[in-house]
Amino acid sequence: MNRSDPLRLGVAGLGRGFMLLMPTIAAHSGVKLVAAADPRTEALERFEADFGGTGYSDFESLCQNPEVEAVYIASPHGLHREQVECAARYGKHVLVEKPMALSLSDCRAMIDAMQQAGCRLLVGHSHSFDSPYLQTARMIRSGEYGRVKMINAFNYTDFLYRPRRPEELDTAQGGGVVYSQAAHQVDIVRLLGGGEVTRVMAQTGQWDPKRPTEGAYSALLTFANGCFATLTYSGYGHFDSDELNGWSGELGQPRGPSEYGKARAALQAVTSSEEEAALKNRRAYGPDLGLSDTSLEGIAHNHFGWIMASCEGADLKPTPAGIDVYGHTEHRLVPLGAPDIPRREVLDELIAAVRNDVPPIHSGEWGLATMEVCFALLESARTGQAIDLYHQCPVRAEGA
Amino acid sequence: MNRSDPLRLGVAGLGRGFMLLMPTIAAHSGVKLVAAADPRTEALERFEADFGGTGYSDFESLCQNPEVEAVYIASPHGLHREQVECAARYGKHVLVEKPMALSLSDCRAMIDAMQQAGCRLLVGHSHSFDSPYLQTARMIRSGEYGRVKMINAFNYTDFLYRPRRPEELDTAQGGGVVYSQAAHQVDIVRLLGGGEVTRVMAQTGQWDPKRPTEGAYSALLTFANGCFATLTYSGYGHFDSDELNGWSGELGQPRGPSEYGKARAALQAVTSSEEEAALKNRRAYGPDLGLSDTSLEGIAHNHFGWIMASCEGADLKPTPAGIDVYGHTEHRLVPLGAPDIPRREVLDELIAAVRNDVPPIHSGEWGLATMEVCFALLESARTGQAIDLYHQCPVRAEGA
Repeated sequence: MNRSDPLRLGVAGLGRGFMLLMPTIAAHSGVKLVAAADPRTEALERFEADFGGTGYSDFESLCQNPEVEAVYIASPHGLHREQVECAARYGKHVLVEKPMALSLSDCRAMIDAMQQAGCRLLVGHSHSFDSPYLQTARMIRSGEYGRVKMINAFNYTDFLYRPRRPEELDTAQGGGVVYSQAAHQVDIVRLLGGGEVTRVMAQTGQWDPKRPTEGAYSALLTFANGCFATLTYSGYGHFDSDELNGWSGELGQPRGPSEYGKARAALQAVTSSEEEAALKNRRAYGPDLGLSDTSLEGIAHNHFGWIMASCEGADLKPTPAGIDVYGHTEHRLVPLGAPDIPRREVLDELIAAVRNDVPPIHSGEWGLATMEVCFALLESARTGQAIDLYHQCPVRAEGA
Repeated sequence: MNRSDPLRLGVAGLGRGFMLLMPTIAAHSGVKLVAAADPRTEALERFEADFGGTGYSDFESLCQNPEVEAVYIASPHGLHREQVECAARYGKHVLVEKPMALSLSDCRAMIDAMQQAGCRLLVGHSHSFDSPYLQTARMIRSGEYGRVKMINAFNYTDFLYRPRRPEELDTAQGGGVVYSQAAHQVDIVRLLGGGEVTRVMAQTGQWDPKRPTEGAYSALLTFANGCFATLTYSGYGHFDSDELNGWSGELGQPRGPSEYGKARAALQAVTSSEEEAALKNRRAYGPDLGLSDTSLEGIAHNHFGWIMASCEGADLKPTPAGIDVYGHTEHRLVPLGAPDIPRREVLDELIAAVRNDVPPIHSGEWGLATMEVCFALLESARTGQAIDLYHQCPVRAEGA
């Protein structure tokens, strides 16, 4: 194996997560998809046709394939721990989707397993990999704008009204916006705020009895370095904060006000949870949806709503177009060129870790710390109390 | 006295607060300015020239004038209590500027004094009088959009870099953005959230050693009705949230990106606190600045940054143009016509209370409850603890 050889990747779970990262994987010369595991035969057939790799109906068989160097685990949240432990037994590096796992002990077990195996563990894709946020974190770290003091983050989407499997509407099984969406927002805010959250106070909202899980939350976070942050999220499909990002969507797709209410409207026609799961499956990878149906053409940098990071010397606002710098005397845009391969950052970090031994920002410890904030958010909302945190870690300086 | 006679008003303090409300008072046929008290002789002379009323160098003399029916107290915060008590002794109704006072016991004493005198006490002007917020509160109260569940409020201004007297930069004397600006934002959020805050968790920021008071804060509020809210404020003169209100300013004035950094720049030339106070005085009412220098022409509805109130059935976003309603199936604007007399709402509420015995929304009890939130905000920031509240009151239904 040569350092410049493409990283040979196996993927676990050919669902929605895979669909989102697939075009990036296909376009990136540094990785090559060689195997996939999924219970759906028709998805595996499509995979073999699209990528020429090998399909497996069970995950362990995939791990037994010596060709596979690293595994991208994009299976349902509840499977993450056992699949990471299995990958560790076979000496595979792992990129595991957010949320990392549904308990701190599961997260810890995953870290330990990979450490003992001498393998890399990365947690992602999350939106904290998006270039605008990574670039803002670099600008903060440069010291040019003074210390970061306050972060205001909010995002309004139709998350709760996208087609769901029943467990995605059950918090105990990892459903709801705290596990799926705070995992993004907290990750971004930690990246910009220095990483080490000391205290969380939060409230969550469950406002639609037909979707009985958290659909909204607000939180106040305090950091070890004195920074503080407010986080607000609503997935109830009313206001859409893409409006504040020039109608560029979360995934970089062009959007517009004419799409108003589409998610709720599509769900109106659905009469049972089985029908809804079927609707969701139609968006999953398979015979009717594959590589040829995707395109990276015209895709902008991803984003996760509104983020404003106030430093002593400037307010920094990352957007798909770049970083708006509101300084003492002038407002200017630090532009980001259009991405050559949208969402490539997660693969770049994985390749650097495995091939060049560069410690990743989004390590297992980092992912655990983000989940600790998410768990605290739920606990604070349940108890009404502020929750102290004990498992946080700072942002790793790139190149350090 | 006839119910339709103009309310005869005396004003205490011909400073910045008076400057802001003066054109509204002058334009409103329901009130007539008949007296003023201020230590500055030149301001009193201008007042007599502008309004034909009587000037007094001390407040009690103004109260002794039998012509005066109600007093608008726009003096420095620290004088509010003694002036209200004095007005009560002479049986005058009172409109007292925010912040009502700097301790709960002062607020309580003011309420008691006015109650014993059988007079009306109103607290304002604050931006919760602005038509867009009053109209949003009516829409929430109508029940048409379900219950209000979450409010997200933020405002970014150059507050801290406007010319200040030394005490305005000293929290102990009522300086800083919590007393002067949270008093607005909390009042608005309470108006929309039902009024009764049960718990406050907050952080404050003091990021400029040359302006040693709170210049920023973030808070998470919980309401008795289950609603919760995040409030964020920065007065550090970087990002300006007027950008999100179509460049209509807090006071309804047209603004633009070309004004960037002006407040800081103006302050650069200042070398002492005396010079700064002098700069501030040039913006106060007096020989060089009077009624003829003001105009209500082209003034839009006032606003206080970004406010989003999420109800079960819609997100409601009040702006100077109207209320954006983001419902289940459509986004529409409930337009508000341009104001006939900007900021008239505070006078309308005062007149209705005094002339027609209509209990005001912005009563003494209401003002005390807003200050309790502000005090809790400071205490929570100091101690790191969540603070429970005990003196809250619901929003009075209009016409009730």
